[in-house]
Amino acid sequence: MNIPEWVKDSIFYQIFPDRFANGDQANDPPNVQQWGSPPDPIHFQGGDLTGIEQKLDYLQDLGVNAIYLNPIFLSPSTHRYNTVDYYRIDPKLGTPDDFRRLLKKVHQRGMRLILDGVFNHCGRGFFAFNDLLENGKNSPYVDWFYIHGFPLNAYSRGKATRYEAWWGFKSLPKFNVHHPAVRKYIFEVARYWVEEGIDGWRLDVPNEIDDDEFWEEFRHVVKSVNPSAYLVGEIWDLMPRWVNDTHFDGVMHYPLRSAILDVLSGKTGINDFYARLLQIEQTYGQDDLFGMYLLLGSHDTERVKTLLNGDAQKLHLAYLLMFAFPGAPSIYYGDEVGLEGGRDPDCRGAFPWDESKWNLELRQWIQKLIEVRKATPLLRRGKWRLLEPAFCDGVVRMVREGGGDQLFIMANLNSEPCRITIPAGSNNPAPQQIPQDLIGGQFTVEKNHQQFEIVLPGMSGGYFSTSFS
Amino acid sequence: MNIPEWVKDSIFYQIFPDRFANGDQANDPPNVQQWGSPPDPIHFQGGDLTGIEQKLDYLQDLGVNAIYLNPIFLSPSTHRYNTVDYYRIDPKLGTPDDFRRLLKKVHQRGMRLILDGVFNHCGRGFFAFNDLLENGKNSPYVDWFYIHGFPLNAYSRGKATRYEAWWGFKSLPKFNVHHPAVRKYIFEVARYWVEEGIDGWRLDVPNEIDDDEFWEEFRHVVKSVNPSAYLVGEIWDLMPRWVNDTHFDGVMHYPLRSAILDVLSGKTGINDFYARLLQIEQTYGQDDLFGMYLLLGSHDTERVKTLLNGDAQKLHLAYLLMFAFPGAPSIYYGDEVGLEGGRDPDCRGAFPWDESKWNLELRQWIQKLIEVRKATPLLRRGKWRLLEPAFCDGVVRMVREGGGDQLFIMANLNSEPCRITIPAGSNNPAPQQIPQDLIGGQFTVEKNHQQFEIVLPGMSGGYFSTSFS
Repeated sequence: MNIPEWVKDSIFYQIFPDRFANGDQANDPPNVQQWGSPPDPIHFQGGDLTGIEQKLDYLQDLGVNAIYLNPIFLSPSTHRYNTVDYYRIDPKLGTPDDFRRLLKKVHQRGMRLILDGVFNHCGRGFFAFNDLLENGKNSPYVDWFYIHGFPLNAYSRGKATRYEAWWGFKSLPKFNVHHPAVRKYIFEVARYWVEEGIDGWRLDVPNEIDDDEFWEEFRHVVKSVNPSAYLVGEIWDLMPRWVNDTHFDGVMHYPLRSAILDVLSGKTGINDFYARLLQIEQTYGQDDLFGMYLLLGSHDTERVKTLLNGDAQKLHLAYLLMFAFPGAPSIYYGDEVGLEGGRDPDCRGAFPWDESKWNLELRQWIQKLIEVRKATPLLRRGKWRLLEPAFCDGVVRMVREGGGDQLFIMANLNSEPCRITIPAGSNNPAPQQIPQDLIGGQFTVEKNHQQFEIVLPGMSGGYFSTSFS
Repeated sequence: MNIPEWVKDSIFYQIFPDRFANGDQANDPPNVQQWGSPPDPIHFQGGDLTGIEQKLDYLQDLGVNAIYLNPIFLSPSTHRYNTVDYYRIDPKLGTPDDFRRLLKKVHQRGMRLILDGVFNHCGRGFFAFNDLLENGKNSPYVDWFYIHGFPLNAYSRGKATRYEAWWGFKSLPKFNVHHPAVRKYIFEVARYWVEEGIDGWRLDVPNEIDDDEFWEEFRHVVKSVNPSAYLVGEIWDLMPRWVNDTHFDGVMHYPLRSAILDVLSGKTGINDFYARLLQIEQTYGQDDLFGMYLLLGSHDTERVKTLLNGDAQKLHLAYLLMFAFPGAPSIYYGDEVGLEGGRDPDCRGAFPWDESKWNLELRQWIQKLIEVRKATPLLRRGKWRLLEPAFCDGVVRMVREGGGDQLFIMANLNSEPCRITIPAGSNNPAPQQIPQDLIGGQFTVEKNHQQFEIVLPGMSGGYFSTSFS
């Protein structure tokens, strides 16, 4: 599979548009909430596209070079997953010109931008569903959805019974993508925005469009406009069906997230962690790992800091591990400054622009990891491999290698220190080469015959290179 | 007031888009009705923009040089007065490119095109109203309408009670144009389409937006983009408030239509006809008559042929009279070939493209009137004046004059012949000048001292010129 090369070099930043930055108060809804209010599903806090544009310096300073935006098309909800018009930027977020300007400035900085494609279902205000509400069985769009009877009772309480809807939510009527006109409509939307210049689509719940031919054509439409557009599916489980040259370049790598956070939070042991990593590799194959969207959190999960009970060491290790894997690591907006929040709606809080509220140490750690990743080709393109566990419990040893070079990722998830060897191999360190942690940690290194032994204190880790110094 | 010069030279053709011509079957709704079926409000017959484009030769052959399109924006209804998206061409009518191509070809032929602006109310699928359905009192758009309570019950039976709607129809929520955001939205729509190149707006029920400042700004927005854009209001009564340089260039001249059709159908006598014409002139003033949109029928009336019981002579006289007035005469699509139909929905039948069904004599009459109007500056720019009635009952005598020239419009609405004099005046015909009917009628003319006497048979008329031959 031809994974776009830029994806391998990317660090994504996911933005929930209403809550990142308010750059234009003129487009705020009249009942806009105070920035930083406890997030709820109903109220807007005023984030917009101009806000993102104004924070591009911030994002570049952090080091990220790609943006994934949660839905920005016209929608009555704060999450905007119930799309009303796939061609229209929500006016609460800005004008079409605001979007074009943002995209242009993103590209001028060598950054990329992908949008959230929500094609399994739409909102009740989508024109074709509205037509059904207006015309009932006489609607020209009666085949665009799965209808069981009229009237649809779309605005009464309860689950949808007269039409198929996502998880039965009346607000999310499910498209009949087997109808040619619906396919045509969706493909035209997909094409339109790629032609407008976006760098790819994150596809929402694509497994609910259980139709390989649909996705094959979707991919063809997108790639024929921009062969290096990135397609990434929201797939929560290990499902290799979705990663290949008739589907997506990668998926949101929730299984890796679970493996990292479960072992750090103590839900699972190191053996289980190893087993899960091996299963991931076996499921997708080494090559396909490079298209994965790596994440520790999203708009659909508890925030990572909350999940790890604010434990700074665990947070550092979580990012250290994620940044060591092939694919494109991502930061969920605000996580880098220690924003907390449980599951939806709490994980969608406003970004705290008051720097006194920032966890600077965490932000610097992530900044450093990004810098190292960008400076270290092995972290982006090196083959990934697990090494056998160390003698101490709770230690992870991995390697990224290529071109005769190796980078050793060592993480001690236990509270006890552990003495770890850099293993023998074709490119064994020569006695003169003292392994150094690229992230900058200072560790005690002892020479033992032709190997080095590193003493990793409890809850620490590093990226150890012997190819210099 | 600066009435756009082109309006005075225009003959409009009004098209109800679903029923004029089907040029692209690919955009037909799946349940499209057979072309020519008895029209009903629910079913589409497949007319579209490409159909209009393909019939531009037909329209030019007829002689019209301006088109007024009933609404073409996204809407679930065949009439499309319940707008869902003011920026989107209804896909059943074509693509944005289809519209641009049509507009370009119209302009290439020296023709003009105006659209129907429906800004008093929208459809239930309009994004802001949909937002109210979704978010209730928390909607950011709660001030965009006149809301009396939630839930809105927008899709249950009966009249609207929780929100203001046009004539109480739930399907037509009335905008609160006093809200700045609504004004801004509407003005942006108005500006957008004029920037796209349309030549003006026909404004739907503008008197229900009872706000002079609104219309003053509306006019300013439109004229600042295109000073010669035509603004014509749908005003049914004599209401001079609407015709001036802070409102419209003209209105749909229903009072003239009524005067003509009432006298021809025998509802009123010639004295009443004269009185109504004088009232019209006194109401608007001579100058403002030149911006009027003259009509014998529209999508909102019985068709003229039906109203006149198919009487060919009366039909001819109706057109002869209308074409004699200042303003822009119009043909309601199909009227020229004798299409019949009572009030809505019957007056919205499909154009019969089978020429064997055409009333060729009527079409030729109209074609000739258009030709004469185009060839005769007095008919377009001459001052209009009533002459005193003839001695016989039922005879209309009018004059269009200017630059020392006069054109006499004579119509005998009675079944008895009448001897009519061409009156004495500063430019009295010299004995050598035999008055001739520009339309081509052959009448007996007798010289009587310094005047001419024309014998007008019953139910006939002509445009008599003495300025040549």
